[in-house]
Amino acid sequence: MSTIKATNITWHESHVERAERAKLLKQKGCTIWFTGLPSSGKSTTAFTLEHELIKRGFLAYALDGDNVRHGLNKNLGFSSEDREENIRRIGEVAKLFADAGLITMTSFISPYREDRDQARKIHDETGLKFIEVFVDTPIEVCEVRDPKGLYKKARDGELKGFTGVDDPYEAPLNPELTIDTKSQSPEQIAADILEYLMGNGFLSTTDKH
Amino acid sequence: MSTIKATNITWHESHVERAERAKLLKQKGCTIWFTGLPSSGKSTTAFTLEHELIKRGFLAYALDGDNVRHGLNKNLGFSSEDREENIRRIGEVAKLFADAGLITMTSFISPYREDRDQARKIHDETGLKFIEVFVDTPIEVCEVRDPKGLYKKARDGELKGFTGVDDPYEAPLNPELTIDTKSQSPEQIAADILEYLMGNGFLSTTDKH
Repeated sequence: MSTIKATNITWHESHVERAERAKLLKQKGCTIWFTGLPSSGKSTTAFTLEHELIKRGFLAYALDGDNVRHGLNKNLGFSSEDREENIRRIGEVAKLFADAGLITMTSFISPYREDRDQARKIHDETGLKFIEVFVDTPIEVCEVRDPKGLYKKARDGELKGFTGVDDPYEAPLNPELTIDTKSQSPEQIAADILEYLMGNGFLSTTDKH
Repeated sequence: MSTIKATNITWHESHVERAERAKLLKQKGCTIWFTGLPSSGKSTTAFTLEHELIKRGFLAYALDGDNVRHGLNKNLGFSSEDREENIRRIGEVAKLFADAGLITMTSFISPYREDRDQARKIHDETGLKFIEVFVDTPIEVCEVRDPKGLYKKARDGELKGFTGVDDPYEAPLNPELTIDTKSQSPEQIAADILEYLMGNGFLSTTDKH
């Protein structure tokens, strides 16, 4: 009854090699880790880049609060242990996505250097590239944007432990890229990151379409 | 300097739609959840299927002990709470992978019906298909295979809480597929699952090569 011949199938005892997926997708899996203050423009940049990659035939996926906080990390609160565990799990999931061949983006404040360095370390250990992108928008600009009124709440003392107000943001020391959403449009930033991915061999340079 | 024109790029405030990735990949993301006793053949089946899908140009990824236990779930032990949390996280990560468009496989004993049903529920809620595959190998067969000598250790009392020996395995009541690794080869089983995926519209029926 089966139209697929079992005799053409080979028994395997191990995973598909990373290189095989890279060949199929014409791209090398990696993690683009956006970090920056609340309202600095991390998600807009990630979403814009995600759309542009897909449009060009490359597989990309953005991990962010929408798809992570209410799912995988819904049992975590805002204690310092839970914040650390939040970033740890995101790093591990990003690593799995990168291993699977995707251009993976993470869009979280991730304020602590140590947590980001740990995420980088687990990528490095398995030969996966971790591209840290510092969304370097000055706090004055973020605070004027404040789409959800969170800075205001933090300033009014209604919100405790808010990054940039009463909790520190530790800027990356050696990010692969630093972007400035004050003077550059999201479109220009996405173009620059695409350029970086092309220039560093993550995307096949010939357009797939 | 940039060869990519920012003027061709559109600013986006939200994720790429699932349908756009499906179009790109010529497949619909889903989760194939293998469940069965230790040494029942879950991983061999998942690996064989993973290779066959990639060979045919489809993007597949198997989550298993190798890539999950020592990473995302390395802070979990074997208490009943930790076992439940182990399966919960795997379900959430599989959901993210399926959302990203991959034919996702999970290869874990996952002995409790309630935990598997919970993983199914979170897929159902977001319109993602959860395909439960019961690897129905009789315990006598698993115990003869016993590649790591774990059944023996459990019988000798050196290993506590071992599924099938002193911890229960709750067989699925309504799995999408039941496979029998005693009478069928991994090759035949992989062919049957491929057939199921084709027949149910998860893979474009024309060969991509």
